[in-house]
Amino acid sequence: MRLTVLSGPSGVGKGTVVAEVRRRHPEVWVSVSCTTRAPRLGETDGVEYHFVDVEEFTLMVKKGELLEHAMFAGHAYGTPRAPLEARLAEGVPCLLEIELQGARQVRAGVPDARFVFLAPPSWEELVRRLTGRGTESPEVIGRRLDRARIELAAESEFDAVVVNDDVTRAAARLVSLMDTD
Amino acid sequence: MRLTVLSGPSGVGKGTVVAEVRRRHPEVWVSVSCTTRAPRLGETDGVEYHFVDVEEFTLMVKKGELLEHAMFAGHAYGTPRAPLEARLAEGVPCLLEIELQGARQVRAGVPDARFVFLAPPSWEELVRRLTGRGTESPEVIGRRLDRARIELAAESEFDAVVVNDDVTRAAARLVSLMDTD
Repeated sequence: MRLTVLSGPSGVGKGTVVAEVRRRHPEVWVSVSCTTRAPRLGETDGVEYHFVDVEEFTLMVKKGELLEHAMFAGHAYGTPRAPLEARLAEGVPCLLEIELQGARQVRAGVPDARFVFLAPPSWEELVRRLTGRGTESPEVIGRRLDRARIELAAESEFDAVVVNDDVTRAAARLVSLMDTD
Repeated sequence: MRLTVLSGPSGVGKGTVVAEVRRRHPEVWVSVSCTTRAPRLGETDGVEYHFVDVEEFTLMVKKGELLEHAMFAGHAYGTPRAPLEARLAEGVPCLLEIELQGARQVRAGVPDARFVFLAPPSWEELVRRLTGRGTESPEVIGRRLDRARIELAAESEFDAVVVNDDVTRAAARLVSLMDTD
């Protein structure tokens, strides 16, 4: 069984599609990241994340126990290697949702993974999602759209594309991709 | 000739060591990144960076012309693949300085590169460099030191370590590592 890595631009709805996969496809094992940030209201250890302290995270890095890791806004996030490899060895379909730079790191560790790009139905729709609240300055919006254009161009690095026009259909397409070898 | 990738924690002095290599070892070709950020005072296009606009950068991503790329503070940075591959094919020793996440991305594209970790002479010295100006809040300092601890742990991912106790000696050690195969 190959690992499937789901990535795509910020704002495209990766988390929502993965939540739908969890709900409708319990046969798919979804990787849970570890993080040094504090749990938010409603988050449960081991469900959204494994919450660890900086000492534990440092030790995992040192021992090579993370498939990839990165810092965001002062907190560390990483993908534990062992549980994923155990599920793959058992033949369980495994899904890893990750931002674009993380996906590129995973490619180094698991070159035979299947890399799926979650794309917005259109550029206009992505713009709508990224500018939705309309409370930011034109500079902030401009930088966000610049980033989105560059992130969308990364589609060419991926093995397959799923368009997130409808969350149920996108999740179903993703899971059907996982069946094929 | 193999590519040498120099990485290491923030604040360890990667840029200074590479500047020393440029000055003393003109036989080493140093990769120049492209970026969408504006040049700063004293920066020259093609020396510190290739300055490109978002359209050009997007096209490079789309065509797979970048070995790795990433966003920092709203700007895109990337490593052009073609000039590096041309120099390597000519047998020129090539050096690429990059932060830790970028180094992990390069591993996917150039698995036979030599990965060198630039380490501080001691934890105390890195703390001194990261807290030097003493103008930040304890929270900011705390997060920076947490990050430094995690970044230092990444030493185990590397093929070789150069300690930056003295910039001239660190540069010399790095270049002597590049000679060996």
